[in-house]
Amino acid sequence: MLRVYLDNNATTMVDPKVKEAMEPYWTEKYGNPNSLHQFGMELRATLKRALDRLYAGINAGDQDDIIVNSCASEGNNTVLQGIYNEVIRHSAKDRIVTTSVEHPSMRAPCHFLESLGVKVTYLSVNDQGVVDLEQIKEAVSDKTALISAMWANNETGMLFPIKEIAEIAHSKGALFHTDAAQAIGKVKVDVREVGADYLTFSGHKFHAPKGIGALYIRSGAPKLRLIYGGEQMGGLRAGTLNAPLMIGMGEAIELANAALDYELSEVRRLKDKLEDALLKIKDVFVVGDRDRRVPNTILASIRGVEGESMIWDLNKNGVAASTGSACASEDLEANPILTAIGADKELAHTALRLSLSRFTTEKEIDYAIETIQNAIERLRAISITYDK
Amino acid sequence: MLRVYLDNNATTMVDPKVKEAMEPYWTEKYGNPNSLHQFGMELRATLKRALDRLYAGINAGDQDDIIVNSCASEGNNTVLQGIYNEVIRHSAKDRIVTTSVEHPSMRAPCHFLESLGVKVTYLSVNDQGVVDLEQIKEAVSDKTALISAMWANNETGMLFPIKEIAEIAHSKGALFHTDAAQAIGKVKVDVREVGADYLTFSGHKFHAPKGIGALYIRSGAPKLRLIYGGEQMGGLRAGTLNAPLMIGMGEAIELANAALDYELSEVRRLKDKLEDALLKIKDVFVVGDRDRRVPNTILASIRGVEGESMIWDLNKNGVAASTGSACASEDLEANPILTAIGADKELAHTALRLSLSRFTTEKEIDYAIETIQNAIERLRAISITYDK
Repeated sequence: MLRVYLDNNATTMVDPKVKEAMEPYWTEKYGNPNSLHQFGMELRATLKRALDRLYAGINAGDQDDIIVNSCASEGNNTVLQGIYNEVIRHSAKDRIVTTSVEHPSMRAPCHFLESLGVKVTYLSVNDQGVVDLEQIKEAVSDKTALISAMWANNETGMLFPIKEIAEIAHSKGALFHTDAAQAIGKVKVDVREVGADYLTFSGHKFHAPKGIGALYIRSGAPKLRLIYGGEQMGGLRAGTLNAPLMIGMGEAIELANAALDYELSEVRRLKDKLEDALLKIKDVFVVGDRDRRVPNTILASIRGVEGESMIWDLNKNGVAASTGSACASEDLEANPILTAIGADKELAHTALRLSLSRFTTEKEIDYAIETIQNAIERLRAISITYDK
Repeated sequence: MLRVYLDNNATTMVDPKVKEAMEPYWTEKYGNPNSLHQFGMELRATLKRALDRLYAGINAGDQDDIIVNSCASEGNNTVLQGIYNEVIRHSAKDRIVTTSVEHPSMRAPCHFLESLGVKVTYLSVNDQGVVDLEQIKEAVSDKTALISAMWANNETGMLFPIKEIAEIAHSKGALFHTDAAQAIGKVKVDVREVGADYLTFSGHKFHAPKGIGALYIRSGAPKLRLIYGGEQMGGLRAGTLNAPLMIGMGEAIELANAALDYELSEVRRLKDKLEDALLKIKDVFVVGDRDRRVPNTILASIRGVEGESMIWDLNKNGVAASTGSACASEDLEANPILTAIGADKELAHTALRLSLSRFTTEKEIDYAIETIQNAIERLRAISITYDK
């Protein structure tokens, strides 16, 4: 039986070249890069190169900061808790504006800040799963410290109009953050073109290992921190530098950007093939216009097919998919984005997310199409609610 | 030329068995453990086993929490910022008592909490580099939320009387935290015997990779968090589980405890051999009684030999040592612990920290002794302050 991994928005395989790049740093070049001897110093050129690759990877300016940390969840917490500590506590600004479909690592720290008295506005999304600019304009005032909106949604893959949102933020004197965890390697990510003050990402979404990520801070924007301590990362993120994984992430971002044309053509073609096959089935819907989405993601709603049953059925046949974000997948709830865009209660439980990567093959997609078709047939046949 | 690594308190080599244990989890078993399909589920037994090994490694109880995070710096910040959010903000307790020789990842967040109005007492140390219990008793009151004292000092290796400190804390209704980053693998670490409410450590100090650590929370103690988001780690630490490194740390802690007898006999013997050779040299001092120290650490003070010059000279000859904590080693300051125990200004600049591991060989120690002797001779010959 073929094993087909279509859950790349949850996490990705480490690229074998990334694994190879990390190889010497476990048992040979294992020093602490802060040390003043050869075991530390021999790492510095490679780490500098890894950092340069991260700067190039998102087109950061020389004067900007890229703070390597453990993941986008840490980065998102650093932005929100940092804005509270560095801006809100010391100014008349006491508001944050964000969307109702951000990742849990945005939503949960927002709830924490609300317990501290911060006013957070969660903007709803339209039937495309995207916020409207007019709604943002209305929500923002000179009391707004930060607007945060994701670059691409983790469940639908829909791209948000972040350049326009950044402009709205800046026109009102607010800072702008974007969670780009689902964007890097899928579309061109250029912080300066977008005008982001802060940007966060995780390496494991683009074939680097889990446990490494980064926070971009534009030069001139308040410097934010969450983990206080040693002088690593210019004093903005304490903890011994994770040299092997940082080197891996540098390699991974370069590979991801080098593969971007392939992603936008071939991965998109395979995804479209899968999407077209799904849409030929009766009562199957896909959220969002495909030309406003990252090229690898499909969020489908399949009437009469409960999401978890579908995942189990597919899994039995070797196909790995999800009902939505893995970060919330332990509870069997309605898919929040389907709910957010106004699906009825039954439909909101029928989410199927399929996410490809540059390692997905045509053979795998053909197998997945057949497997999904069969699963839908089987599950609808035993459904008590679906009108056959 | 031999390459001799005597800076194991800064970071350690990954044990080849740990590297091997992580091997399948980069490009084969790369799923997100939260996912409800085979790529996620195939990790669960191994991750459970890794967590079991961490519980066994510090003798945590079944009802206690071990929160896997990115490092002890993160853990220490979680404890301090968490105590502020969960205890100090909601009670009449507004004080923290700690020592003046904690790691920067304790000191810096303490300074941050002071900016929020928390009163922090930093207890000085005696000529052994250890806090006196009487002094702690005096400092603690019913306003004290937390006492924090390290298990073993990173620079001297001196063991703190943490069981007694925990008792003092509990007798006054305060919680007790210990930073055990320098203790695991060097002495037996038993959280329950000591009575710690919180304990933090980093894997890379005991031959696991950098970028993985943990926070122990005793059952019944307030649950603390720093990174809010998904439901990973029971909702106490968001971010995709770092499966490969968590598996590596599980392997590493088991190996470290299995090697503890060797550490306490052979590593100690090699360290004593090195220490004895140093003490035979005129005007060389070593901080702290050796039977109250972890078995692998020497903090020497060598009159007439400036610390950084020594490190450079040794490094030229293949021996990696440090003047103290790598987390502060980018600035050429007086060694804080030598200053804390009352060394004069000149002497405080002569620190040499040598830290062994179970991979250190007798041949390496013999070479290090000769190299250090020669370096001292050379540097004293050109010293303008040393009275030859």
